[in-house]
Amino acid sequence: MKKLINDPADVVAEALLGMAAAHPGRLRVDHDLKIVYRADGPSQGKVGLVSGGGSGHEPLHGGFVGPGMLDAACAGEMFTSPVPDQMMAATGAVDGGAGVLHIVKNYTGDVMNFEMAAELAAADAGVEVVSVVTDDDVAVQDSLFTAGRRGVGVTVLLEKIVGAAAEEGRSLQDCADLARKINQTGRSMGMALTSCTVPAAGKPTFDLADDEMEIGVGIHGEPGRERRALAPAAEIAQLLVEPVVADLGLDRGEDVIVLLNGMGGSPLIELYLMYHEVSRILDGAGIGVARSLVGNYITSLEMAGCSVTLLRADDDTVRLWDAPVNTPGLRWGI
Amino acid sequence: MKKLINDPADVVAEALLGMAAAHPGRLRVDHDLKIVYRADGPSQGKVGLVSGGGSGHEPLHGGFVGPGMLDAACAGEMFTSPVPDQMMAATGAVDGGAGVLHIVKNYTGDVMNFEMAAELAAADAGVEVVSVVTDDDVAVQDSLFTAGRRGVGVTVLLEKIVGAAAEEGRSLQDCADLARKINQTGRSMGMALTSCTVPAAGKPTFDLADDEMEIGVGIHGEPGRERRALAPAAEIAQLLVEPVVADLGLDRGEDVIVLLNGMGGSPLIELYLMYHEVSRILDGAGIGVARSLVGNYITSLEMAGCSVTLLRADDDTVRLWDAPVNTPGLRWGI
Repeated sequence: MKKLINDPADVVAEALLGMAAAHPGRLRVDHDLKIVYRADGPSQGKVGLVSGGGSGHEPLHGGFVGPGMLDAACAGEMFTSPVPDQMMAATGAVDGGAGVLHIVKNYTGDVMNFEMAAELAAADAGVEVVSVVTDDDVAVQDSLFTAGRRGVGVTVLLEKIVGAAAEEGRSLQDCADLARKINQTGRSMGMALTSCTVPAAGKPTFDLADDEMEIGVGIHGEPGRERRALAPAAEIAQLLVEPVVADLGLDRGEDVIVLLNGMGGSPLIELYLMYHEVSRILDGAGIGVARSLVGNYITSLEMAGCSVTLLRADDDTVRLWDAPVNTPGLRWGI
Repeated sequence: MKKLINDPADVVAEALLGMAAAHPGRLRVDHDLKIVYRADGPSQGKVGLVSGGGSGHEPLHGGFVGPGMLDAACAGEMFTSPVPDQMMAATGAVDGGAGVLHIVKNYTGDVMNFEMAAELAAADAGVEVVSVVTDDDVAVQDSLFTAGRRGVGVTVLLEKIVGAAAEEGRSLQDCADLARKINQTGRSMGMALTSCTVPAAGKPTFDLADDEMEIGVGIHGEPGRERRALAPAAEIAQLLVEPVVADLGLDRGEDVIVLLNGMGGSPLIELYLMYHEVSRILDGAGIGVARSLVGNYITSLEMAGCSVTLLRADDDTVRLWDAPVNTPGLRWGI
């Protein structure tokens, strides 16, 4: 295992020290509870947005904390759910009187722990909490860590769009409805060329032959739909885009927001090349691209590969997408 | 070789198609000449900034084209200098009457070709051109592709800071003076855990044993100072920061802008962990951090590793650093 780390047990804690040092005016980090907060929060009257999950998917979620996106993110150990104590503390801290929205990727541990935290926050501190679960991965129905579909790329788009909605003062119910709509109208599919290595494990999560790729891989290296022979980018793009378009039932003339996401270990030049293939397929199908985002946004450590997320676009989502955001991972207009 | 590509010969051209598709309102790409332009340029009366170099270092340079940074970037083939024709065309296209600054990383091919292009642009089109060469890498004196030090991370900081200076209307001479000052007061040192693979070569550029790392590596995988046993992040940070601090002659009480740059294949969580170590060393040496940037900015395809760049900070450079910028790779305030 070749990594820029000290003790594998300290990776998450030390990376959070680095985040705090790198963004002193923008983030505040509770190092005991491993929670990343907006330095300027909580905002009175604004719905608080809390997410979190296992570490190893950076910049998700801590890198999406800031004006226009999340108010707090709870960092679990590598590929491991945070615990209810973290979520409870974050929920209480960001409540500005308008309630708190939990954004939860559909993995058994995350769902269970966020549920428990929501109940405790309501009972103990009287905070109104609504949870929205993302489950946008079309690859498999159930998976290693899930009942139902896994939550992946749509989570990034949702955090941005609902973050903007909260910023403009929408109610908790409106934010939750919007979040559910985004999850229902967005779908993803990923693939891997190589595995990643969790530091504490010290060896690759899965084995993949030199001439193979995994189509439909999960962001923890969970098995996908099939293992098949390595193929050119044009063919890989087809294998990712077609099931997403089919599952969403996208028709000619519709518009989408596209996320071409890197899994962490693929160079940016390859991600742009893949985006060319994806945009060509969409163009051929008569589907318009309202907005796009190309880069590493929800990763699996150093895994090589990518995923495609398509979200049905309407005027409201595009306007909220364009609204100012100021986080380490996504920033414009501020 | 496992890559998200089609034919290795088409990688640069197809990635540029992807860049154009991903940033339609912001970039304009000349696909014949492989030049990335600001969609809104040239600006009358503003000094034009042109850079470029071999591809494989993305987002450098094409990803730094836009308001507040470069006006044009010439993309060479992978790890290969662009040709004078590209540079000449870009120079002519961005001239808004105030002259053009060439920002050239110190590699033999780039220096030679930019020199030729500057002469031709002056002779043929009457464009006033000044060239500034970056040579900030303290690792080695001469190298595989250089006479003198290599140009690396300072190039990113220079393009941002001088980009802002050009935007506020400074003259060609002032921009060139500022660029030279930045190069003289900034230094870098990099390291690799793994090699990268150039698509056309199909195999790793160099071999590195499972328990080894290369200290002082170049951004094309050129040999550095030494190959030594893999070490913890804290020790790696020492090996990078100390030679840079020594070479700059930084004293207690001075301030720097820090770039903790990923080589492309190291996950963001490791880069933040490394930044923690770097900031701890600087803190211990009494050196203040005025601004910092952590992420993949000047890469070597999928190489795992990182580099540290320190730039002496003064009020002018920090103010220009903070000025609005709107490029795919670096964006704030717009």
